[in-house]
Amino acid sequence: MPKWIDHIVVRVNDINQSLEDYETKLGMKASKGPDAIPAMGMTRAILPLGDDGRFIELAEPLGEGGAIGGALERYGEGVHLVALAVDNLAEAAAEMKANGARVIETGAQVFIHPKDGHGVMYQLIERE
Amino acid sequence: MPKWIDHIVVRVNDINQSLEDYETKLGMKASKGPDAIPAMGMTRAILPLGDDGRFIELAEPLGEGGAIGGALERYGEGVHLVALAVDNLAEAAAEMKANGARVIETGAQVFIHPKDGHGVMYQLIERE
Repeated sequence: MPKWIDHIVVRVNDINQSLEDYETKLGMKASKGPDAIPAMGMTRAILPLGDDGRFIELAEPLGEGGAIGGALERYGEGVHLVALAVDNLAEAAAEMKANGARVIETGAQVFIHPKDGHGVMYQLIERE
Repeated sequence: MPKWIDHIVVRVNDINQSLEDYETKLGMKASKGPDAIPAMGMTRAILPLGDDGRFIELAEPLGEGGAIGGALERYGEGVHLVALAVDNLAEAAAEMKANGARVIETGAQVFIHPKDGHGVMYQLIERE
């Protein structure tokens, strides 16, 4: 059972412009980035919320064929995913799968298909 | 400065079907609803996350001309807004406005225009 919303990922056209808007207009401050992460096909910046490790992530596509780039082309800027904290990632994934959810496992990452989230892609993330 | 993600509102085509999916497949449990709230133009259900008052809200349009219905028609199901907790609502709104954000005040509710959120409509909500 998810415990809280850990973070959201927002896909953006221009990481520098969006980071400037979030910092200047919304009063947030990036702790990291923008950093290019070629393995994840994105350049990202992390904006912490409070002191508990929760955050908003801004992500601009890097290179061709990544998930962020595809969604940006199709849907424009917006919420790319919502990450929910769970006690035990493997157990939560197995339980949701057993209950009929389309669980997508990519390496160590676990996602729930947006069809089951009714337009929202959820990521499950293990947090104490 | 926002402290955490308090809740998200997910706009859906069918509150009963989406609630069933969230309860059955994702293992969440509604504490309230579905309840018709004509003044807000929606029928909604609240799915708590943990014990701190945070939640996911599912919202189906009710009647004509509401914000949820318009967005559902244009964009389909998905994240309608992301609510960020702040210490003091009036101060946070004034500060963001002074810093150039398009702050939308509707009754006691405060929203940030999705242009400033880069595709995300944020609501600011006062939480201790």
